Amino acid sequence: MTSRVRLVVVGADAAGMSGAHQALRTARRHGVDLGVTALERTGHTSYSACGIPYWIAGDVPGGPDGGEHLVARTAEEHRAAGIDLRLATVVEEVDLAARAVVAREPGDDRATRIGFDHLLLATGARPRVPAWALDAAGRPLPGVFPVRSLDDGVAWIDALLGGAGLGRRPEHAAIVGCGYIGLEMAEALLRRGLRVTVLTRREVMSSTLDPDMGALVREGMQSAGVEVVCGAAVDGVEVSGGAVRCLSAAGREFSADVVALSTGVQPETELAAGAGLALGESGGLLPDQRQRVAEGVWAAGDCCESPHRLTRARAFVPLGTHANKQGRVAGENLAGGSATFHGVIGTAVTRFVAGGVHLEVARTGLDQAEAAGRDVEALVTHSTTAAGYLPEAAPIAVKVLAERGSGRLLGVQIVGGPGSGKRIDTAAVAIWTGQGVADVAAMDLSYVPPLSPVWDPVQIACRRLADRLR
Amino acid sequence: MTSRVRLVVVGADAAGMSGAHQALRTARRHGVDLGVTALERTGHTSYSACGIPYWIAGDVPGGPDGGEHLVARTAEEHRAAGIDLRLATVVEEVDLAARAVVAREPGDDRATRIGFDHLLLATGARPRVPAWALDAAGRPLPGVFPVRSLDDGVAWIDALLGGAGLGRRPEHAAIVGCGYIGLEMAEALLRRGLRVTVLTRREVMSSTLDPDMGALVREGMQSAGVEVVCGAAVDGVEVSGGAVRCLSAAGREFSADVVALSTGVQPETELAAGAGLALGESGGLLPDQRQRVAEGVWAAGDCCESPHRLTRARAFVPLGTHANKQGRVAGENLAGGSATFHGVIGTAVTRFVAGGVHLEVARTGLDQAEAAGRDVEALVTHSTTAAGYLPEAAPIAVKVLAERGSGRLLGVQIVGGPGSGKRIDTAAVAIWTGQGVADVAAMDLSYVPPLSPVWDPVQIACRRLADRLR
Repeated sequence: MTSRVRLVVVGADAAGMSGAHQALRTARRHGVDLGVTALERTGHTSYSACGIPYWIAGDVPGGPDGGEHLVARTAEEHRAAGIDLRLATVVEEVDLAARAVVAREPGDDRATRIGFDHLLLATGARPRVPAWALDAAGRPLPGVFPVRSLDDGVAWIDALLGGAGLGRRPEHAAIVGCGYIGLEMAEALLRRGLRVTVLTRREVMSSTLDPDMGALVREGMQSAGVEVVCGAAVDGVEVSGGAVRCLSAAGREFSADVVALSTGVQPETELAAGAGLALGESGGLLPDQRQRVAEGVWAAGDCCESPHRLTRARAFVPLGTHANKQGRVAGENLAGGSATFHGVIGTAVTRFVAGGVHLEVARTGLDQAEAAGRDVEALVTHSTTAAGYLPEAAPIAVKVLAERGSGRLLGVQIVGGPGSGKRIDTAAVAIWTGQGVADVAAMDLSYVPPLSPVWDPVQIACRRLADRLR
Repeated sequence: MTSRVRLVVVGADAAGMSGAHQALRTARRHGVDLGVTALERTGHTSYSACGIPYWIAGDVPGGPDGGEHLVARTAEEHRAAGIDLRLATVVEEVDLAARAVVAREPGDDRATRIGFDHLLLATGARPRVPAWALDAAGRPLPGVFPVRSLDDGVAWIDALLGGAGLGRRPEHAAIVGCGYIGLEMAEALLRRGLRVTVLTRREVMSSTLDPDMGALVREGMQSAGVEVVCGAAVDGVEVSGGAVRCLSAAGREFSADVVALSTGVQPETELAAGAGLALGESGGLLPDQRQRVAEGVWAAGDCCESPHRLTRARAFVPLGTHANKQGRVAGENLAGGSATFHGVIGTAVTRFVAGGVHLEVARTGLDQAEAAGRDVEALVTHSTTAAGYLPEAAPIAVKVLAERGSGRLLGVQIVGGPGSGKRIDTAAVAIWTGQGVADVAAMDLSYVPPLSPVWDPVQIACRRLADRLR
């Protein structure tokens, strides 16, 4: 006689729900009777956090009310698949010894214990909000907003209409930090008609691009009308009468009506820490290749560090792509199957489309800072996205890093016009499979004049670096 | 004392001139005193044959006079690099025993012999013009045009203005055959305001796409207003008074004012055959991996067959990408260096943008016909080019073929909206490096909502096929 295996999932977003559905599929395949309970602190499931800037920009159907379109799978859909999904349910404690979580559902006077055989921690990440942006109660100051959750999106849309405590429609936004979210919010707010000032400690995109490539992004932003202030380490905010003043380290002041925080995220792992699970330097969980963190305990998504295939170290890379894959791996393994998460190589893409500028920005592998200590050669190639004689041709810059001696491709960065960004996947597959720059130069890639020069720009860059390394 | 090494290049287009320039670079590196003579039958060098449909469509600066923009490197540039380039020079014979070619320059009464130490044959390919389209002198009938050379482009542009013997501006074009050139000419002529009828023996794109994927292309063409007649094996043309009638095998007749031939190309290897060099089934030369066909004799580009990495057989794949690479390999080797051509896997891309339709079409690896005899599983996935909630999202269909058992990815075909086509390179690198569909599903590819769903469509298709093969 078989008894029901109980899976409790904490966090019902990409990682958790990919895991829950994969676990159910695998259990069916293996004849396991699996019961899945998913506990979600917010009122939303499986939404696209990455879509929020585009919702704010006005690209999502339904406009201000379009948040539902960012939901990949609704609560009803999860429940229809047999998952006992409980929203607005706060898990207060994970008791590993007793194999139970302590959770409080809405309206509950007291928390209840929910036992599990398997636990999947998919608690995600939360914005890293600087202390100077918080009030005494630990909430962001009025007029200062992160960009992370659906609720943040609602607040932004409200703010742009003069709500969210602003009192009037904001005309000037300051964006603190300029990583992916900063760049995407600059696009969104510019397209919503605001003046935009970006305040960033170093060059724009400096956490993912080398400064020479970041400068190309900054120039694009500037020509679209964004004021970009590099070297501005914001260390304070003053709010008075609907106006916000950002104070940079050098004592300079910048006024704005509203402030977007693009100051990164951090793993949401207080529960895991409370349960005695080990955390890495970033504060993220440290699952093995099967996404296991302890006997019967699994973790996936932005609450985890991931193995980097090039550095062999663990990296905190909070992206939906990894969350989905890790969730599936965890779900497969906990339900009796076998799967491996094969790691990350730092692939990412974004774009900036506003004010007559269309820039796509991408990277994979190691940048020069990450490659420090290795014997590398780097080269930037300027080419076009299409044959130079066609109107489709836009500038594209491709930076390639390779190891001297072996010629192994280590990293690629791309900044260019329409059609540039997804070319990074060509490089990502090459890096993933350990190719050298000469190997890439030899490959049979596609060409038609309106979509590419005869040699694809990624290939040109690799060929030139191969020639130099010879 | 060193004596000058003489290289004669026959054909001064992509392969020949890539070879000439690489030979000069390599010779310099090795301290070899190399003299290069390049003999070109036409008046043009190094032009983009693939750009001709876009020139005809009106996309190239200068309009009717824009042909020069298709020239990647002019005669003057080649000469400035030290190449003795002779245009309008017909090579009448290759005398391998005497190590000389017999050539006739414009205005010459008699041919002259030009001795060589190394010979690079880069004679290209010519349109395969059906016998029914030729007059008694072997020229295409009036109103019937191939699309291959710059001169063909000039004739087309002239014809669209009512010249080239037509007497009036054509209003209705018939395109015979629907491979890449047929599709691109349908776009060009539609955009020039003509009615377009495509007559093709089988499904459109049938030489490179499986019928199910070809049907998607046909539906796109049809919704743009192209009349597509499949099963129309044209076996005759009648020209009278400026009107052209195409006669299909089934006795049906189609009238048009002008006819574009998209009936393929064949290697231009009469000279090589006359010299006793071996030819393959397609009539193409059979160079080894170093692009050598005989002692001191090299060949590159569309006059060659190429090794196919998947079939291990030789394939006739006349594309500028291979011509450039093969030319460089030949040039490197003949000048004392060492290089290898690593083969082809059948990667190609094109597009059809007209009548409100934007389709991108791509393929790599084997299609089902080419994979016949192997134990393969195939699957078509319908997805979107961007997150479904954004206006950038366009349909994309990805067909994946993999080997049962090993799971090895064998082929990918893509038909979809803007941003679809160059995604084939992701698959091309994966096939080139021998990945399985499960490997591709695990890879770290790029994602941002306006450029991709969370799982890239190529990756979704591979993941689904991996799941099915498990």
